[in-house]
Amino acid sequence: MTVHVDFEPVGRRGQCPTGSTLLNCARELGVDLVNLCGGGGTCGRCVVQIMEGEVSTPTSSEGKFLSSEQLAAGYRLACQTVPLGNCKVRVPPESLTTPQRTQVEGEELPVAVEPPVQTYLVTLDPPSLDDLRADAGRLLEALAQQYGVMVSILDLAVLRELPLRLRGEGWQVRVAVRDEEVVALLPSAVRPLGLAVDLGTTKIAAYLVDLETGRTLAVKGVMNPQIAYGEDVIARLAFAGESPAQAARLQELVVETLNQTAIEMCAEARVAPAHIVEAVVVGNTAMHHLFVGLPVDQLAKAPYVPAVASALDVKARDLGLHFAPGATVHLLPNIAGYVGADHVAMLLATGVTQAEGLVLAIDIGTNTEVCLVNHGTLTSLSCASGPAFEGAHIKHGMRAANGAIERLRLVDDRVEYQTIGGAPPVGLCGSGILDTLAQLYQAGIVDSRGRMGEHPRVRDVQGVREFVLVAEDEWGDGRPAITFTQKDVRELQLAKGAMRTGINVLLEVNGVTSDEINQVIIAGAFGTYIDVASAVAIGMLPRLPLDRFRQVGNAAGMGAKLALISKTKRREAQAIASRVRYIELATAPQFATTFAQAMYLG
Amino acid sequence: MTVHVDFEPVGRRGQCPTGSTLLNCARELGVDLVNLCGGGGTCGRCVVQIMEGEVSTPTSSEGKFLSSEQLAAGYRLACQTVPLGNCKVRVPPESLTTPQRTQVEGEELPVAVEPPVQTYLVTLDPPSLDDLRADAGRLLEALAQQYGVMVSILDLAVLRELPLRLRGEGWQVRVAVRDEEVVALLPSAVRPLGLAVDLGTTKIAAYLVDLETGRTLAVKGVMNPQIAYGEDVIARLAFAGESPAQAARLQELVVETLNQTAIEMCAEARVAPAHIVEAVVVGNTAMHHLFVGLPVDQLAKAPYVPAVASALDVKARDLGLHFAPGATVHLLPNIAGYVGADHVAMLLATGVTQAEGLVLAIDIGTNTEVCLVNHGTLTSLSCASGPAFEGAHIKHGMRAANGAIERLRLVDDRVEYQTIGGAPPVGLCGSGILDTLAQLYQAGIVDSRGRMGEHPRVRDVQGVREFVLVAEDEWGDGRPAITFTQKDVRELQLAKGAMRTGINVLLEVNGVTSDEINQVIIAGAFGTYIDVASAVAIGMLPRLPLDRFRQVGNAAGMGAKLALISKTKRREAQAIASRVRYIELATAPQFATTFAQAMYLG
Repeated sequence: MTVHVDFEPVGRRGQCPTGSTLLNCARELGVDLVNLCGGGGTCGRCVVQIMEGEVSTPTSSEGKFLSSEQLAAGYRLACQTVPLGNCKVRVPPESLTTPQRTQVEGEELPVAVEPPVQTYLVTLDPPSLDDLRADAGRLLEALAQQYGVMVSILDLAVLRELPLRLRGEGWQVRVAVRDEEVVALLPSAVRPLGLAVDLGTTKIAAYLVDLETGRTLAVKGVMNPQIAYGEDVIARLAFAGESPAQAARLQELVVETLNQTAIEMCAEARVAPAHIVEAVVVGNTAMHHLFVGLPVDQLAKAPYVPAVASALDVKARDLGLHFAPGATVHLLPNIAGYVGADHVAMLLATGVTQAEGLVLAIDIGTNTEVCLVNHGTLTSLSCASGPAFEGAHIKHGMRAANGAIERLRLVDDRVEYQTIGGAPPVGLCGSGILDTLAQLYQAGIVDSRGRMGEHPRVRDVQGVREFVLVAEDEWGDGRPAITFTQKDVRELQLAKGAMRTGINVLLEVNGVTSDEINQVIIAGAFGTYIDVASAVAIGMLPRLPLDRFRQVGNAAGMGAKLALISKTKRREAQAIASRVRYIELATAPQFATTFAQAMYLG
Repeated sequence: MTVHVDFEPVGRRGQCPTGSTLLNCARELGVDLVNLCGGGGTCGRCVVQIMEGEVSTPTSSEGKFLSSEQLAAGYRLACQTVPLGNCKVRVPPESLTTPQRTQVEGEELPVAVEPPVQTYLVTLDPPSLDDLRADAGRLLEALAQQYGVMVSILDLAVLRELPLRLRGEGWQVRVAVRDEEVVALLPSAVRPLGLAVDLGTTKIAAYLVDLETGRTLAVKGVMNPQIAYGEDVIARLAFAGESPAQAARLQELVVETLNQTAIEMCAEARVAPAHIVEAVVVGNTAMHHLFVGLPVDQLAKAPYVPAVASALDVKARDLGLHFAPGATVHLLPNIAGYVGADHVAMLLATGVTQAEGLVLAIDIGTNTEVCLVNHGTLTSLSCASGPAFEGAHIKHGMRAANGAIERLRLVDDRVEYQTIGGAPPVGLCGSGILDTLAQLYQAGIVDSRGRMGEHPRVRDVQGVREFVLVAEDEWGDGRPAITFTQKDVRELQLAKGAMRTGINVLLEVNGVTSDEINQVIIAGAFGTYIDVASAVAIGMLPRLPLDRFRQVGNAAGMGAKLALISKTKRREAQAIASRVRYIELATAPQFATTFAQAMYLG
């Protein structure tokens, strides 16, 4: 039994199983609703408006997040609402996860091209009654004779296509060799391709590379489609942990997206996905495990250990990727359950591990990984900064989509702001949230303990103070107000406190102080867009001269690319992973006192 | 649209697509009809009798094989006949491929057990906040510490089950290591299993082995299910060559049978297929290629080259086998397009390659492979002896099923015979055919040129002489006569001529004569059952004292088992394959004259 559900204005409609929540219907139909809690009714983000049709009665969860006026107007949480028949549903822009600004560019280190896969143009004598050698032996002997390359193994998929390829290409093929194995047969005029991927919790950045020259042929940023099943790592691990089928679904979603992204990038560069012979994928440990199809239960429970930490080589086909039949996916090493290969890639790309003096490298995200490089020794940890900077748990927070306020200044009592795409304001994205708190703090409206004081723009709503950024009547189009609440301040104090605690514990463990830091490297999409001065103002980052900060963009993606084109960089990544001293922040003795301290603003 | 087809007396019935031939209907319903030509209407073996229902009118092919009386009685060729509605079809026993006597036992060489997979019982410390090592690293470090075994790779499937296995087994597991890779995790009390398989064109022999002791736990012989798609290699390659889907179907059929056989043998031995960590499979080059999923076009056309000749290691899961998730299938090397890994296995098992003097080793089948060991040098060739000895192209020939005459003597003018299962006679299987020709020749009824002379039991049917072995009225049950025709003699002359030509060319190439042969080793199912004296009498085998012949049974299967339990034997197999000098018989200069000579009987 099914019901017909119509999601507008996105225009997706179709039959969905009777009894499914609207969130599941949306997933079925490919509508990416925001949801941070994985459908548990606890984040209140998947707001939709019922336009036509009967649905189930509101749950107590919905009562918490929606006013009686909103419920009367048909506003509901998609995860709590089940259609009782055909219905039409409006999805407000802030409930849609896309479009999302994605950061793919980053600073690139120059590196000698030394790819793990080499190709050789080999010409063979066709078999005859006087020369009955098998195709495989014939190929390997020609490779040895013509290039002195001794290889003994052909990948099974290569072997399966060998007879047709040799005959189809007139006994001349470009043989791709990796270690001691033939991993692909390419047409003679084709150059081997590589793909570097930064597999983020929220977004995926991919780089298509000419493996011979190291040149980037195409770059693409797309959303991680797993978002529909929980926006942060915890929600996603919980979803995957419910059943192997759900874990497999998450794996397939990413693989489908990578396949599609490869097709699009190859089309742009006028090359073929079948000529991708090597890929490097980095991500946090959870993304890594979900992508490889490794169990995540032990990752989701204390003491949070990975199934595997060392670098992995996996056949692309074993993951479902449609590259060259024998292509390999190399996964850089993880360090711990919450410090993954993306951290290693970031350290690799920024070159900080060879830095002199004291350097702090921070990759800000839902989890923020921090590494302190202290005259050559590396100490890393992860702090659960939470998704507040991605707009979660913030009353008018949202992700970096159109209409999000990304910059904000208080000028006297006026609020000046800039939105993404110049659209009318919908809410606050991470950099806007950071600016708001910094401005309120600097104007004395919020004190160092985080208490919001009196101000003409501060009002009280049901006992909670809030600062009005955009008033109800400001746009004259019935648009609701955008405010910043006392509760929002507390959320941000937790987030910035976690981040600063991480930094401080690293400094303490190393017996150094923040003013000794020579450089702070800030990586990641959020880190790229923030106003560093705001971050310093609220005390999220140490108070240092601004010229000591360097915002490097997607360093993890750049690290993946380096490891793709350079065997030396790949070895270096393994060396970095084993050099890093990992600290479990929650169990560090300094944690409690430091965290209490770090909650203060300024 | 479908029609209902009922095959009796086997009792298989069901719906089949309208327009399908009865042969295809039989395949659909799992009724294994004999057919040598793959459904082309040229072998005349798939005779059935229409009992009820309308079918298509007879084709010209059917006119060639069936008399008008037979057609009138409803006899038809299944491959030429299409049901026009529901029908009931009788399958005569001689048209059924099963039951078939299968030969699985063979002489076994004693060998030191030295398997390629070793297991180690490893006990791990569980992770804690003070010991956050990943599961994989924890396992490998314990293996190194407790056994000094340095391994760096875990098979992907093993990695995927590692976290649950470690926790489920209380941090104690039996780790199976192959080369430098962990290929399986077994419960601590479990012994690793191996499977040796002789994958014949007609039958499959499988041996379940305790890999630690080398002891055989179960043995099973089953029919190769590909038979439904052509009984000889040529028909099967033709079927596979028609489309990748058909090739894949043949591959799946064998894999399904191996999976099922493994389940049955494991049940018998009270062990589990999931504990099979290694398999060795041997077969002729065509069976090898079809099993591995390699293209066969180049194998079916001159100059008949294999895709690969050297030994192969393939993950069992990549072939669809349900063994331990990381189990390996090792395929012994092929020598040429028509001398495959089964020949290598036979040479390995019989130990002839180390024999002194002059030894001839023959594996008799549809293709007969012969090796002459001449004071340590090995020369091999394949002769297309054809399926005559399996009953094909012989008027009353049949496979070795119930009712087949397997032994026959002329005593004065009486015919004395013995049938398989003691059942009333249905036809002649290979050993019976051989006996018949030998008896007719020795009685002077057939001369050395193969001409059938006068005799009270010789009659003329439509211009063709035939010797009546069993008369029409002999059993008083309307059973048709069983005869041996002039044409049958010619078929056998071709078969024995091909075999003897192979032997003679080997002798000539080596500059030796047949009386110098110290020993003749006869391997294979047919070779086990034949009366060597008959084979010598007609000149199929050289005239030597009978004590120089040794019938060794399924030597290929024994060779597979040796390679399964001994790395030394595996290396020896590779060495044998490279030592063999291969001769393409059809292009040997002696071929034409030798063949003309070898056609003579006696």
